[in-house]
Amino acid sequence: MAKITTIFSLKNLFVLSVALNVSLILKVFYQSEKQVPVGVSTEEQKASLTADSGYQKEADVNQKTIQSLSTSSSSATISLAEIEDGGERIINLDHGDPTMYEKYWKQMGERTTIVIPGWQSMSYFSDVKNLCWFLEPEFGKQVVRLHKVVGNAETDGRHIVVGTGSSQLYLAALFALSPANASQPMSVVSAAPYYSSYPSMTDCLKSGLYKWAGDARSFNQDSPYIELVTSPNNPDGFVRHSMVNKTGGTLIHDLAYYWPQYTPISSPADNDLTLFTVSKTTGHAGTRIGWALVKDPQVARKMTKFIELNTIGVSKDSQLRAAKVLKVVADSCEKTRTSSSSEYNESFFQFSYRVMDQRWQQLREVVNSSSVFSLPDFPPDFCHYHGQVLEPRPAFAWLKCERELQDCESFLRGHKLLTRGGRHFGVEPKHVRISMLDRDDNFRLFLKRLSMVQP
Amino acid sequence: MAKITTIFSLKNLFVLSVALNVSLILKVFYQSEKQVPVGVSTEEQKASLTADSGYQKEADVNQKTIQSLSTSSSSATISLAEIEDGGERIINLDHGDPTMYEKYWKQMGERTTIVIPGWQSMSYFSDVKNLCWFLEPEFGKQVVRLHKVVGNAETDGRHIVVGTGSSQLYLAALFALSPANASQPMSVVSAAPYYSSYPSMTDCLKSGLYKWAGDARSFNQDSPYIELVTSPNNPDGFVRHSMVNKTGGTLIHDLAYYWPQYTPISSPADNDLTLFTVSKTTGHAGTRIGWALVKDPQVARKMTKFIELNTIGVSKDSQLRAAKVLKVVADSCEKTRTSSSSEYNESFFQFSYRVMDQRWQQLREVVNSSSVFSLPDFPPDFCHYHGQVLEPRPAFAWLKCERELQDCESFLRGHKLLTRGGRHFGVEPKHVRISMLDRDDNFRLFLKRLSMVQP
Repeated sequence: MAKITTIFSLKNLFVLSVALNVSLILKVFYQSEKQVPVGVSTEEQKASLTADSGYQKEADVNQKTIQSLSTSSSSATISLAEIEDGGERIINLDHGDPTMYEKYWKQMGERTTIVIPGWQSMSYFSDVKNLCWFLEPEFGKQVVRLHKVVGNAETDGRHIVVGTGSSQLYLAALFALSPANASQPMSVVSAAPYYSSYPSMTDCLKSGLYKWAGDARSFNQDSPYIELVTSPNNPDGFVRHSMVNKTGGTLIHDLAYYWPQYTPISSPADNDLTLFTVSKTTGHAGTRIGWALVKDPQVARKMTKFIELNTIGVSKDSQLRAAKVLKVVADSCEKTRTSSSSEYNESFFQFSYRVMDQRWQQLREVVNSSSVFSLPDFPPDFCHYHGQVLEPRPAFAWLKCERELQDCESFLRGHKLLTRGGRHFGVEPKHVRISMLDRDDNFRLFLKRLSMVQP
Repeated sequence: MAKITTIFSLKNLFVLSVALNVSLILKVFYQSEKQVPVGVSTEEQKASLTADSGYQKEADVNQKTIQSLSTSSSSATISLAEIEDGGERIINLDHGDPTMYEKYWKQMGERTTIVIPGWQSMSYFSDVKNLCWFLEPEFGKQVVRLHKVVGNAETDGRHIVVGTGSSQLYLAALFALSPANASQPMSVVSAAPYYSSYPSMTDCLKSGLYKWAGDARSFNQDSPYIELVTSPNNPDGFVRHSMVNKTGGTLIHDLAYYWPQYTPISSPADNDLTLFTVSKTTGHAGTRIGWALVKDPQVARKMTKFIELNTIGVSKDSQLRAAKVLKVVADSCEKTRTSSSSEYNESFFQFSYRVMDQRWQQLREVVNSSSVFSLPDFPPDFCHYHGQVLEPRPAFAWLKCERELQDCESFLRGHKLLTRGGRHFGVEPKHVRISMLDRDDNFRLFLKRLSMVQP
């Protein structure tokens, strides 16, 4: 007790006590509200998460998520955790859950509130005159408008195909670009480090149409192939171009992060098939809405066909919500250009670049204060959206463990920091990917924890 | 002109003129509101719908849909069409679009209106303590409650897996039930006539895990298999049980239509893996929400994994909307049981059974008035929900062309009635499937047209 009083003053203890009470009340309330899983005990669930060795990785992810999120599900408990944190709390930055953006949307109040009466949007069909018959016209309209306002993609002469997130559109593109009657499945490649889910998404069903063929840099077959170009790249944040330079190749551009908060907008992307997602644009990951800009109508039609066979279209409710959010973003851009700028009158991208810039500066400060880690350096470039030369501020930090540390993910897990190691991205385990898009409290705690890590 | 005045009285002409004006105003308004496809001309779109012979069927469907729905997109034009219809208007009952239910939900006013603020439901995660981490707890709760109120499925000891419609859950179930390392793909069978999309959904990606093996009645291999049991069956409405009786078989029960408006509820379904969908339960097809009740936690986990790789979860917005709709349905059931029943105080299932019953009586009357067509007869059964013996009232009519008519779909197309022919369901083309769930106006027009068909 003597020791405690040396650490905490009476004022500190009072704050701690109030926070504890609030937390306990919230916990009781949360648990009584919580749905009891249908006739299945918690033990059974836990067992089911770890029993099947074939899904051990998934179980790991879920288990990690459970441990972490169960202590971070309300901001009240986060604050308490911060007060009581002595390195005990697990901080999960394994996923790219974009909860950072909640703050902005709270500030925007009712502007993006969506109201849907019970009798609306009941039909399967959204626009039967459109090649993509399940595309809500208002969503398509706002996608075009936002690209024009931001200047990050050509939309003229493109078909918009909406998907249940860009994951579904990636699969739709593979289906559309692979010939139905080829003797061999089409090779799918991407330069390492590549997005960790590409291999398992591609090979999940052992398709006879396409198969994952690994790192684009080492692809040396003469058969047709599909190359995925993710730019800025997930996980490392670098601007990317096609790496394979052979005939018979088709490109899918995944430009999920080609927005002004993450990277300078150099020119409108002008590709055959480009993927975007609301998750990374505005932070609305739970709506599961993505879109593809597709030049060839045959490809757009086959993608539409895939989504028809996969999910018979895409949630109208979420399309309407996404349309409203994109509209408010575009409005915010146009308004701040025509009026004098202040902190309370910044566009969505000004707000989010400011947050990302601050986070990256803080992270670099922590990393540079010791010799344990390093971060990539990004060349500054002129951003046509912001109208100035800016440094990229990627959605993930691609952290490298220096010196003799070989397995950075395990090393950080030892410090109760959950990240995703290099092996998942097709490279050596000295690197880890860390989400930069978590809530403020969690990000602050992550910096604090990282600053205390000793080799 | 003389001929017109013999058909129409002055009063008729006045109504026609008013309707024409309303229609033209709406048309101008509709077209000026309409999104111009991004840099793609209407001609190009039409061409793209028919150019690729590999997708001719799809093109047909879209083209048919376009032709039909472009004259039925507003009730004002429907009324006009009904007035002016001289057999010229195409009536599309090819799809099972459940727009019939809009009327009920309009009557329910604001009770199912959903309001979602911009900062809510942004995270990927819904309930990290649940095996299905993207299941919204409130949706899971209302699913269990509705099954208990209706008595159509056991939920105790089941995991709920939510999907982007039951299509995605069907694919998730195939993935979960097929061993990852088998030398041969698992055979997937269903007794003909089977749901027309099962073969193309199953074989779309040429999976090495499973393959469509056709009619369950003729399946005679000794290898493991998956049997789909759709009950009541789509397209013919009959109650179904497993047809293959071999060892090594696993069943998927598709009970999309096991609700009191379509069929007597004899007992709670008690299967290993059962699929349901909001589309057919309440008519909200545009929300794309389905659910599976799964006994084996390993299977539920693999299904969850599939959905994670396919779409990283399921729209939260639509889950919240579906939860509200299911809640109002369950409320309506409980309220009408505890108060005196009247037309203005009927439960959702009383309303919808009443509409289905009326439609089936009208259809039988038309069919029986000539010898051109016939319909199946369904044995009445005691419905534990309605508390009386009732006849099934399926969501589709499985109409047979009698006498020398071999291709019923073509025959009806000649009368500008779009239906889906037997071949799509694995049987002879003497049958067609006709949706019974369209809007009142369209259904009335269909009856009128059918009654005028001569062999």
